[in-house]
Amino acid sequence: MIKVSVVGAKGRMGSHVVDAVNGAADTQLALALDAGDDLTAITPDNTDVVVEFTVPSVSLDNVLALVKQGVDVVVGTTGWTDEKLAQVKAALAEAPRENQAVFIAPNFAISAVLADHFAKVAAPYFESAEVIELHHPTKVDAPSGTAIHTAQAIGEARRAAGLGDMPDATETDGGSRGQVVDGVHVHAVRLRGLNAHEEVLFGNAGEQLTIRADSFDRISFMPGVLLAVRKVASGSFPGLTVGLDHFLDL
Amino acid sequence: MIKVSVVGAKGRMGSHVVDAVNGAADTQLALALDAGDDLTAITPDNTDVVVEFTVPSVSLDNVLALVKQGVDVVVGTTGWTDEKLAQVKAALAEAPRENQAVFIAPNFAISAVLADHFAKVAAPYFESAEVIELHHPTKVDAPSGTAIHTAQAIGEARRAAGLGDMPDATETDGGSRGQVVDGVHVHAVRLRGLNAHEEVLFGNAGEQLTIRADSFDRISFMPGVLLAVRKVASGSFPGLTVGLDHFLDL
Amino acid sequence: MIKVSVVGAKGRMGSHVVDAVNGAADTQLALALDAGDDLTAITPDNTDVVVEFTVPSVSLDNVLALVKQGVDVVVGTTGWTDEKLAQVKAALAEAPRENQAVFIAPNFAISAVLADHFAKVAAPYFESAEVIELHHPTKVDAPSGTAIHTAQAIGEARRAAGLGDMPDATETDGGSRGQVVDGVHVHAVRLRGLNAHEEVLFGNAGEQLTIRADSFDRISFMPGVLLAVRKVASGSFPGLTVGLDHFLDL
Amino acid sequence: MIKVSVVGAKGRMGSHVVDAVNGAADTQLALALDAGDDLTAITPDNTDVVVEFTVPSVSLDNVLALVKQGVDVVVGTTGWTDEKLAQVKAALAEAPRENQAVFIAPNFAISAVLADHFAKVAAPYFESAEVIELHHPTKVDAPSGTAIHTAQAIGEARRAAGLGDMPDATETDGGSRGQVVDGVHVHAVRLRGLNAHEEVLFGNAGEQLTIRADSFDRISFMPGVLLAVRKVASGSFPGLTVGLDHFLDL
Repeated sequence: MIKVSVVGAKGRMGSHVVDAVNGAADTQLALALDAGDDLTAITPDNTDVVVEFTVPSVSLDNVLALVKQGVDVVVGTTGWTDEKLAQVKAALAEAPRENQAVFIAPNFAISAVLADHFAKVAAPYFESAEVIELHHPTKVDAPSGTAIHTAQAIGEARRAAGLGDMPDATETDGGSRGQVVDGVHVHAVRLRGLNAHEEVLFGNAGEQLTIRADSFDRISFMPGVLLAVRKVASGSFPGLTVGLDHFLDL
Repeated sequence: MIKVSVVGAKGRMGSHVVDAVNGAADTQLALALDAGDDLTAITPDNTDVVVEFTVPSVSLDNVLALVKQGVDVVVGTTGWTDEKLAQVKAALAEAPRENQAVFIAPNFAISAVLADHFAKVAAPYFESAEVIELHHPTKVDAPSGTAIHTAQAIGEARRAAGLGDMPDATETDGGSRGQVVDGVHVHAVRLRGLNAHEEVLFGNAGEQLTIRADSFDRISFMPGVLLAVRKVASGSFPGLTVGLDHFLDL
Repeated sequence: MIKVSVVGAKGRMGSHVVDAVNGAADTQLALALDAGDDLTAITPDNTDVVVEFTVPSVSLDNVLALVKQGVDVVVGTTGWTDEKLAQVKAALAEAPRENQAVFIAPNFAISAVLADHFAKVAAPYFESAEVIELHHPTKVDAPSGTAIHTAQAIGEARRAAGLGDMPDATETDGGSRGQVVDGVHVHAVRLRGLNAHEEVLFGNAGEQLTIRADSFDRISFMPGVLLAVRKVASGSFPGLTVGLDHFLDL
Repeated sequence: MIKVSVVGAKGRMGSHVVDAVNGAADTQLALALDAGDDLTAITPDNTDVVVEFTVPSVSLDNVLALVKQGVDVVVGTTGWTDEKLAQVKAALAEAPRENQAVFIAPNFAISAVLADHFAKVAAPYFESAEVIELHHPTKVDAPSGTAIHTAQAIGEARRAAGLGDMPDATETDGGSRGQVVDGVHVHAVRLRGLNAHEEVLFGNAGEQLTIRADSFDRISFMPGVLLAVRKVASGSFPGLTVGLDHFLDL
């Protein structure tokens, strides 16, 4: 039984994590803390893994403190820079327990992580590739970070394979061809009723390959969170790991 | 049996029309003419309906001549302006036969014409609507004329229904949100392997309606051409008619 | 301002109706009743329209009582038979107010109602048509009532248009071709993460038309409920009306 | 420059292979033979790789003869049994040249091969998975061999990951749930206008992953054929290889 504490337990994501930890057969809830609660209550005695879902402004401090307290941490908060990651690595180097682990994921949706990976694998074999992301209309940035990441992965894979530019005879366009990220056209749709969706289209003469990931609800992140908790608790991933793809058998 | 002559019979579309006329049970091929052939060979004696698929630079002259010769014409050539249409109307007013007809269609694909119509009908009932068109990468213009027409139809239907702007909180965008046509975001994808495709997305809280028309091959225009030939030959559509939707039971 | 009372206000649908009535600019909540509450509290003085979302075993009695009390009723409960509908009609014939109205809808999702209508309109123009419905895996019946209804509408439209059987050379099949409803193959997918979805596919040589309705959440029924409330309150639909399509401009 | 001879050069596939070999920068056409032509004209002097696209009744004899003549063979003809493959292996063991190679592929469409592989990789991470294949209505078998293969790969991957049965509460069904292959529901759609398409759907609470491969035209097999020609000509795959996935970087 893996003892899991949740930091940010009353937040939109954290409350789902509490439910997921209570619902899984191999995890049990230790402490559920939120803003204002004392982090030092979390110790290696009561907790194997902490799941931290707060806000970028406090997440780094939380993680550094938890590392010092000798527990492993799974982080879902966004906003990590290279500089922040370096501070986490430094803290881990001086951590009290051996093989202590911190895991940070930009995206816990397994479908999205798989789609991103499949796009990278498929990219060398197609003349054309474009990315369409679709989100709820209250999203303030376009395109999504995930779509940019996917486009960059496609661009990189094409270069590595020695592919040139994609065929495109467009002469007149008022903006419909989207944003070009690393040579890949990216389109962003905003539609009431949607949540977070990405579609990657590949084409050769006479054939098309489509990979689509739909996240209808943030509950979709829970299998990824539980997977990360198990992998971190297994002791096989000491130090800092970034990205759920490291925990999938790809 | 409807006697059909084809002008532009050796062209990419015209050759399919010849096959379609030969293949249908209720039509038979009269004359198959191409560039350089004498149009005056076509008369009411040998031809009920002419199908004209040539190029914009000669189509108007062809149609005017054929109207004078007393035959009905179904036109698939593009590039029609209000001025050109007015000339056709004037010619029809002095046509030798009573109830002579000219039919011009920007699009003979029944799926595309239905999708366009359905988009117009659905538009008043949704908060959000966007259009994605997808074509082969040798197309020189973006977005497609069909997508622009669909977006305008949606915009018009929304105004008529008193709907305001669509919800969209986008603050930062490098072009991924596409081209805005009459308040509707239009996205154009270019992918090797595709031909001509349009997808219209509508959204309300908790629901989505998607209408998609795929034309994989120009043979997809033939049912529309044959439908037009039959409707024109029926004598029920004297004068000038523009748009295949007039021949569908909508 | 339309005064709306809700019967079944604590149910899964009713609680959404309460929120929707409170949220709309032209409706206000009168009474919110649930099992055990006294229906006679609802009168023409405090209520213009009642929305009834309960269970089939009590819905008929509720509606009959409310009609006698002189209020209009919008019913979302399922399980209506011809016999039950006849009782509602009889009650309306003796209703205390002139032009009293009852509206019953098997489906309040506008996208589903539109998809069904579009399928019927498109059916005469295509050689092939099949229906795929996709639902959450806790649904006990397959295929869905909506899919059966759509298939029947397609079958009827094909017959009316004089179309024969669809092309299908299948000789060996272990069940993959699905259930045939009125000549139309219907396929049912059950997938964790989905809610209620229907896709109708039409095909001719070289072209495809796809109509898809997605209901991600029962909140998707609220625009349809509010539309029904407004139409009923307008006084333009006296008597019994069944089906949201009567309130759409189709 | 790879010298390529084509056996079955006038067939539907073979004629595309001739065009593809002529069109690629690194291949040139040696001999183009068809039924009745003398296979012994093909020698290591004039040919590096033979592409064989004929019919099952003659393919084995062709391949055995070509192996004896000392040339590498890429085979697109279907109908290979374990017994036939054993005969090819035996012939290769006594082949005149060292490292001689025969490559046989059930499917040369790169998108289909990738989709199959991705389905296998994704399968362990989802509660639900179903397969929909869609084909032209002149296909005599349902479901397609590719869909059966994909379903088996999913079933095998689920067992290896220790997953149990998929959630499915269906109690009443008249056949709409499709054919169950290794625990995976498989649905077959037949639609005029389609060619060969496969869609694999995976679902978890709140999320869906969709992988779709579309083959619109048999020209879609040519990139796979050219890839196989290059890999075989490279000398890195001596002996018998079955399946295009061996030549992709997966």
